[in-house]
Amino acid sequence: MKVKVSRKAHFNAAHRLYLPEWDDAQNESVFGKCNNPHFHGHNYELIVSVTGDIDPQTGMVIDMKELKELIKMEVEEALDHKNLNVQVPEFKSLNPTAENIAVVIWNKLRPHIAADRELEVVLYETPRNFVTYNG
Amino acid sequence: MKVKVSRKAHFNAAHRLYLPEWDDAQNESVFGKCNNPHFHGHNYELIVSVTGDIDPQTGMVIDMKELKELIKMEVEEALDHKNLNVQVPEFKSLNPTAENIAVVIWNKLRPHIAADRELEVVLYETPRNFVTYNG
Amino acid sequence: MKVKVSRKAHFNAAHRLYLPEWDDAQNESVFGKCNNPHFHGHNYELIVSVTGDIDPQTGMVIDMKELKELIKMEVEEALDHKNLNVQVPEFKSLNPTAENIAVVIWNKLRPHIAADRELEVVLYETPRNFVTYNG
Amino acid sequence: MKVKVSRKAHFNAAHRLYLPEWDDAQNESVFGKCNNPHFHGHNYELIVSVTGDIDPQTGMVIDMKELKELIKMEVEEALDHKNLNVQVPEFKSLNPTAENIAVVIWNKLRPHIAADRELEVVLYETPRNFVTYNG
Amino acid sequence: MKVKVSRKAHFNAAHRLYLPEWDDAQNESVFGKCNNPHFHGHNYELIVSVTGDIDPQTGMVIDMKELKELIKMEVEEALDHKNLNVQVPEFKSLNPTAENIAVVIWNKLRPHIAADRELEVVLYETPRNFVTYNG
Amino acid sequence: MKVKVSRKAHFNAAHRLYLPEWDDAQNESVFGKCNNPHFHGHNYELIVSVTGDIDPQTGMVIDMKELKELIKMEVEEALDHKNLNVQVPEFKSLNPTAENIAVVIWNKLRPHIAADRELEVVLYETPRNFVTYNG
Repeated sequence: MKVKVSRKAHFNAAHRLYLPEWDDAQNESVFGKCNNPHFHGHNYELIVSVTGDIDPQTGMVIDMKELKELIKMEVEEALDHKNLNVQVPEFKSLNPTAENIAVVIWNKLRPHIAADRELEVVLYETPRNFVTYNG
Repeated sequence: MKVKVSRKAHFNAAHRLYLPEWDDAQNESVFGKCNNPHFHGHNYELIVSVTGDIDPQTGMVIDMKELKELIKMEVEEALDHKNLNVQVPEFKSLNPTAENIAVVIWNKLRPHIAADRELEVVLYETPRNFVTYNG
Repeated sequence: MKVKVSRKAHFNAAHRLYLPEWDDAQNESVFGKCNNPHFHGHNYELIVSVTGDIDPQTGMVIDMKELKELIKMEVEEALDHKNLNVQVPEFKSLNPTAENIAVVIWNKLRPHIAADRELEVVLYETPRNFVTYNG
Repeated sequence: MKVKVSRKAHFNAAHRLYLPEWDDAQNESVFGKCNNPHFHGHNYELIVSVTGDIDPQTGMVIDMKELKELIKMEVEEALDHKNLNVQVPEFKSLNPTAENIAVVIWNKLRPHIAADRELEVVLYETPRNFVTYNG
Repeated sequence: MKVKVSRKAHFNAAHRLYLPEWDDAQNESVFGKCNNPHFHGHNYELIVSVTGDIDPQTGMVIDMKELKELIKMEVEEALDHKNLNVQVPEFKSLNPTAENIAVVIWNKLRPHIAADRELEVVLYETPRNFVTYNG
Repeated sequence: MKVKVSRKAHFNAAHRLYLPEWDDAQNESVFGKCNNPHFHGHNYELIVSVTGDIDPQTGMVIDMKELKELIKMEVEEALDHKNLNVQVPEFKSLNPTAENIAVVIWNKLRPHIAADRELEVVLYETPRNFVTYNG
C-alpha cells in the first residue's frame, strides 16, 4: 500500500531575476519588476512529499518528525532569510526562478530519501504562483 | 527537467443547473437547490497549470505574467460577473456544472499553450467542492 | 469574564447592484460589472460573533451547536442558493451590497440573542472584500 | 472526458500512536509526543476525490450531494468525535497513523463507488502534515 | 503610536466536555458528541496579540521572536499533545471549553507581558469555531 | 449605521532590520536573521479597512473599486517589488519593521479617506506574524 506523505514548511528570501549576459532592456522586458537590481522578496511556502509503502509495523511511510528535521537542515538552513542570488551557491550562475528553486530543493533532498521512495517538491512563490517538480 | 507551473485566478458568476428536456420535478430531484430558476452564484477559484521543460536560459517553463494575462483574456473576460446560462455561448445548451465549466475553460486555453506542454484546470465552485480536468 | 464566541457559516447567492431610479448609464458608472442585469453571484462567507459572560457552570458563553442552528434557520434558509434581488423580501427595495446584506443578517439574528450579549456580523463577499457590522 | 471531482469534509478525533508489543522506551523513541498514553487529538480535514467520465446529459461525474452524504454516513459517523484507538474497530490492532487512517477511509468508501471510477483520499492530520492514498 | 502585534501558534490536544455533578443524560443533552467519555481532540490554532507603543529606536512593540518563545514556553509546553482534562492542572475542576481554554492561556501569558501592554487571545477550536478574550 | 469595509491586497518586497548607530553585534543580537546585510524578503498581505455610515442611496460605505484603486496607487506602486531600505524614502532613516511599515501605509492612505471615516491597516509579514494600526 503506497501512500504519499506531505509536509509543509516555509522560508523567506530575497532574490532578483536577470541574466548577466543580457543588457538592461532585455532583462527588463522579460523579467519586469522581478528584475529590480536592489532585489525584492517572498515568503516561500514549501510542500515536500515522499511516496512509499507503509511500514506494516509502525504504520508510517516516513517519520514526519524526521521529514520536518530534514527539510530544516537541508532547505531552511540554506535558504531562509537569505539573498538567493548573493548568498546561495547554487544560484551564483542559475536564475532563481520558482522553477529553478524547486529543482535545487529537490536535488538537496533526494540523496536523503531512500531510493525506492518518490520525492515531490511544490513551491509557492506567492499565494497565486506555484510550481511542482518530481524529478 | 519538467516542471508544472500553476497560477491561481478567480471570477464570480451566476448559474442554474437544469435540463430543459426534463420537467420541474425531475430537475428538482436531481439538482436540488442548484435548480433555482432565478439563479444563484459562486466565487469560482481557478488554478491553471502548464507542465513543460524549463528553458535552460531564463529558468522559466512559461512566463507567469503571460499566463496571468492569458487567463484574464480567455477566461475572466468571458466569465467574470456573467450569468453563465444566459450570457456565455458555451452554456446555451450545456449544463454549467463545475465539471462542464472546467472543460470549457480547458478548451478555451488549450489553443494558446504550446503543443508539447500539458494543461490542467482545477476549478473550485465552493471552498469544499472542486474539480480537476487535464484533457 | 466576557468572551467573544464566533462561528463561521456560508451561503451562495446571486445578486445585482443597481438603483431603479437611476438610468443605465449612472448604474453602469457607479456599480460597474456588478450592475449586470442578468445577475452574477458569490460564495458568501459569514462569521457571527456573540460576546457575553462565560456561564460559570458550563464554561460556555453560548452553545456553539445552538449558534450554528440559529444561523442555519435565520440566515442560510433565507439566503442560500437564492437570487437576493428577486427572492429575498428585504432586498425588494434595498440594494444588496455587502454592507446592506450584513445589516439585514444582523437584524435577523438580533432578536434571537439575549439582550445583554453583543452581536457582530462579518460578511465576506469575496476572499478580498468583506464588511463588519455590530449594530 | 474524465474529470476528478473532489469534496472536502472534516472530523475531530482523539488518538495515540504506539505498538503494544514495544516497551515504553521504544514507543517514546519512535512516536514521541504522539505516544501520550492519555491521548491527544486533531481536526482531521479530508478530501475525497472520484474520477470518472462526465455524464453527457447531467454534466456531472458524481452528484456532489450524494458524495457529501456518503462521506457523512461512512466516515463522519464512524470517526467524528471518537477516540480512534478505543472506539473504532479498525484500529483495535492497527496504529492510527495518518497513513493508516487514510487507508481505512479509502476501504470504507471504495465499495460505494462504481468500479470504473478511481478513488483518492487526502487526509490532513494538521495544516502542515497530510497524506494521499489512491488504492 | 500604538500598534497591535499578533503571532499565530498551534497545539493539538484531547478533551471532553462534561460536568461531574451532572448525570449522563444531562451531560449528553448539553454537550452532545463533545461529551464522549473516551475523549476526542482538536488542532487548536492560537493568535496572541500584544498592543503597545512602538519603541522609537527599534521600531518594534515587542520582539516577535520573544513572543514566539513565550507562547512556546507558557502555552505549547503546557498543552501540546496533552489530554486537557487529565493532564493539565487548570482543567481538573474547570470544563475545557474553548472559552475556558482561552481564559487559561490569557492568565498564563499576562504576567509575562509588561503592565502597560494590552493582551488578547484568539483560539480556534475548529476552522469554524473560535473565541476571543482580552481580560 | 456604521459599517467597516475591508479590502485585501498584497505586495512583495525585500528589507533588512538594523540600526546604523548600532554595531554588528548589537544588530545581530536584537534582529537576528532579519539583520542579514544582503536583505531577505516577504509577501506582505495587507487589509485596509474604512469605517463609516452606509450611504442610504447606494448602500455603500465606500466604493470597493475605488478603495482597491487607492491601495494600488498609494501602496502597491510605492512598495511592490521594492527594496524597502534602499528604494522607499520613508525607510531611509526608519527601520522597516512590520509595525513601522503599517504606520507608513496608514499615513499614505489617511489623506485620501474622508475625515469622518476611520481607517485601519492590518499587515501580515508572514502567515504567522501580523500587526494592526488604526492611528
